[in-house]
Amino acid sequence: MKLFSLALLLAFLFIADSVSSQSVLNPDHKENIKQIIEKGMSSDIAWDRLTYMADTFGPRFSGSENLENALDWIVEKMQEDGFDNVWKQPVMVPHWIRGQESATLISPREQDLPLLSMGGSIATPEGGISAEVIVVKSFEELEQVKDQVQGKIVLYNAEFTSYGRTVQYRVNGAIEAAKHGAVASLIRSVGPYSMKTPHTGTMYYNEEVEKIPHAAITVEDAMMIQRMYDRGEKIEIHLELNARTLPDTQSHNVIAEIKGTEFPDEIIVLGGHIDSWDVGQGVMDDGGGSVAAWEAVRLMNKLGIKPKRTVRVVLWTNEENGLRGANEYHRWVKEEEQSLEEHILAMESDAGVFDPIGFGFSGSDGAYDILTEIGATLKVIGSGEVTKGGGGADIGPLMQDGVPGMGLVVDGSRYFWYHHTAADTMDKLDKEDFNECVATMAVFAYAVADIEERLPR
Amino acid sequence: MKLFSLALLLAFLFIADSVSSQSVLNPDHKENIKQIIEKGMSSDIAWDRLTYMADTFGPRFSGSENLENALDWIVEKMQEDGFDNVWKQPVMVPHWIRGQESATLISPREQDLPLLSMGGSIATPEGGISAEVIVVKSFEELEQVKDQVQGKIVLYNAEFTSYGRTVQYRVNGAIEAAKHGAVASLIRSVGPYSMKTPHTGTMYYNEEVEKIPHAAITVEDAMMIQRMYDRGEKIEIHLELNARTLPDTQSHNVIAEIKGTEFPDEIIVLGGHIDSWDVGQGVMDDGGGSVAAWEAVRLMNKLGIKPKRTVRVVLWTNEENGLRGANEYHRWVKEEEQSLEEHILAMESDAGVFDPIGFGFSGSDGAYDILTEIGATLKVIGSGEVTKGGGGADIGPLMQDGVPGMGLVVDGSRYFWYHHTAADTMDKLDKEDFNECVATMAVFAYAVADIEERLPR
Repeated sequence: MKLFSLALLLAFLFIADSVSSQSVLNPDHKENIKQIIEKGMSSDIAWDRLTYMADTFGPRFSGSENLENALDWIVEKMQEDGFDNVWKQPVMVPHWIRGQESATLISPREQDLPLLSMGGSIATPEGGISAEVIVVKSFEELEQVKDQVQGKIVLYNAEFTSYGRTVQYRVNGAIEAAKHGAVASLIRSVGPYSMKTPHTGTMYYNEEVEKIPHAAITVEDAMMIQRMYDRGEKIEIHLELNARTLPDTQSHNVIAEIKGTEFPDEIIVLGGHIDSWDVGQGVMDDGGGSVAAWEAVRLMNKLGIKPKRTVRVVLWTNEENGLRGANEYHRWVKEEEQSLEEHILAMESDAGVFDPIGFGFSGSDGAYDILTEIGATLKVIGSGEVTKGGGGADIGPLMQDGVPGMGLVVDGSRYFWYHHTAADTMDKLDKEDFNECVATMAVFAYAVADIEERLPR
Repeated sequence: MKLFSLALLLAFLFIADSVSSQSVLNPDHKENIKQIIEKGMSSDIAWDRLTYMADTFGPRFSGSENLENALDWIVEKMQEDGFDNVWKQPVMVPHWIRGQESATLISPREQDLPLLSMGGSIATPEGGISAEVIVVKSFEELEQVKDQVQGKIVLYNAEFTSYGRTVQYRVNGAIEAAKHGAVASLIRSVGPYSMKTPHTGTMYYNEEVEKIPHAAITVEDAMMIQRMYDRGEKIEIHLELNARTLPDTQSHNVIAEIKGTEFPDEIIVLGGHIDSWDVGQGVMDDGGGSVAAWEAVRLMNKLGIKPKRTVRVVLWTNEENGLRGANEYHRWVKEEEQSLEEHILAMESDAGVFDPIGFGFSGSDGAYDILTEIGATLKVIGSGEVTKGGGGADIGPLMQDGVPGMGLVVDGSRYFWYHHTAADTMDKLDKEDFNECVATMAVFAYAVADIEERLPR
């Protein structure tokens, strides 16, 4: 701790010395930033809150009581925190329920296949489906064997390359398989590493193509079935999914803010999505990002720091299977608050609260230069690098309307190990990394809110 | 490939140059070793056999048809391989069946708790057990709260330090909990890393203490329950285990050998255990070690290398929950073959077939020096280091009777990630590492079998 304090001191001396007189940051800003980092790094509050929320409410899936109970608890705590405003913004969200589900390899030998239905999947018919399996590695391979698909289960055994490239089988796999008459489709879970851990996630149907059940088995089992298939063995699977979609249900975004002292109508918004999938604890994705954003604003307030502009935290609901929270916030901003032009910057953390590197920013060069200067103050915790390009799903609608946006960039080496799995649990996070995420969000939010210059678009 | 061949050549020139004239290895030995390494590293046969066995028969648990079917297939293949002798040695083994099992956290909130009963555990009574949970981190903590244990489920949340220290809760946890009136006991799975992956393993009962059900939950859930418990929340779990123990059943060791040309009565024995737990594919533990030992001897035979002494591969059955195979082989050696004195060296691979480092050897200094010289020939694949101390469970009974023994040492960094879990599957292995294990076992077995000097005890 002493060594850390010394390093902090030396770093600040260095920064104070190296920043030129054209700096957007004055000595008061720098002192406040120093306090934010020190307090952010030494606090237990956010870590304990995240842990409590994860343990007490469990996963926070859209439509679940868990989610609404967690939201109520957050609002209660935010009120204790003494924000200027705290409110819940009503959002109607999809209500899909997983139900009991199982898959069993029947041929060439019997074995349980742990699986997770894709969110939104239909159920299998009463009694389940038993069918022969055709294994393909890609949509191109599917096209080559399309005449053999009728009446079968298609297994997409696509090796994880990048999330963007591999997730297409989760998202569109059912549609493509159904076009050729498949009775169900399975994917190899979308992740680069597995310990027999299935991954869920969202999927699409196409109203012009028959809906078929769609689920993910583990990487291990997909690879094994591929090997069996390549040996010419007949693969047969029995599948029982009991998922169902209920009518949309009431959820909420949670919003809290500290009002700006000089330009209260100008808003710096930061947040994460508070909903998660229905497995694990949803801490990496994205309870951690949500609580970090909340803590960033609480910290400022607690330190008595009153920035010129309003700082607002939004915990968006239903990012995972609908983005309804982000869309409703955007609609409200545009149509009711009419503050789109006054949204100075939108910040999001949804890549896990691992060791932070900085932010990926999408906006003007002028803004980029200012953010880069602010980032230099985070050198002491190594999290101030601003790179060009970045954002996030929940700030996406704002960004499409011209709001500069940025997403927290962290060490992502294990993000997709846990993504949408039962293993997205508290023990995967590190308190110091998490506090660095808090401090990083807080410093950027504070500085953009308090500098003289309005961040140029 | 070319670079590899060049490195091989240079290494052999180096070895040829550096070994003194007192060497136990003559030029013929060195030529044979070179061939063994080259052939071992370039072959697909053992890798393909291991994969086929793992996929086709699945886990090979004592008492299961899977195991006996795998043994029959191995015998058939060994006969095709043209060993001098191939036979099955009958061994009666325990027959425990897992059955359906589940655990559910009831309070403070409902959540499924993935679990695996310990091998040998009794079932819960009809309808399961619902009971309050008392959480301890150690037997010492249990002692401190022993007056509160009556009628409860004890959860041992012991953090993994080393396998030897942590496994005591799996092995003796039920006995210690039952002494104080617990109705069941649970452990945090014995592993340093988890992706919601429970670990099974063997356990003991004590005839003087009541038998209670005993199972492992995941590291994640044990940690969560500990946190809830530390917050003063009441923990309640519903447990349903349907395990049962049937009468002992017939299994077999599989034995194959190539007879020595000069000293056929002198035996170098090498092997692994062919049984596994009833989850995963049992490839790391220990199908890989078994197939590597088998391949080591096949390779010699295939290359037409005829060592002076007999080289025998033994695939022991029932290491996991009884060690009956190892004990029966030892009894047979001692009482029937009467070859204990002629067992020159016993070698085992049961630490996973990851990147090999060498062998841990228990025996005389004279033997150690010879093995070290043999190990030098493996420099090219970096697997020839001989360290003092080592052996293995299946060669343990032989070693206790004075047979020099050694166990393959490999990169063990992830061994306990997969140990006794559904994630012990083919994809965790690397073909080149595996072939290095084969070559390493083959070189030591061949050289000890073919040098002039009988390895001194």
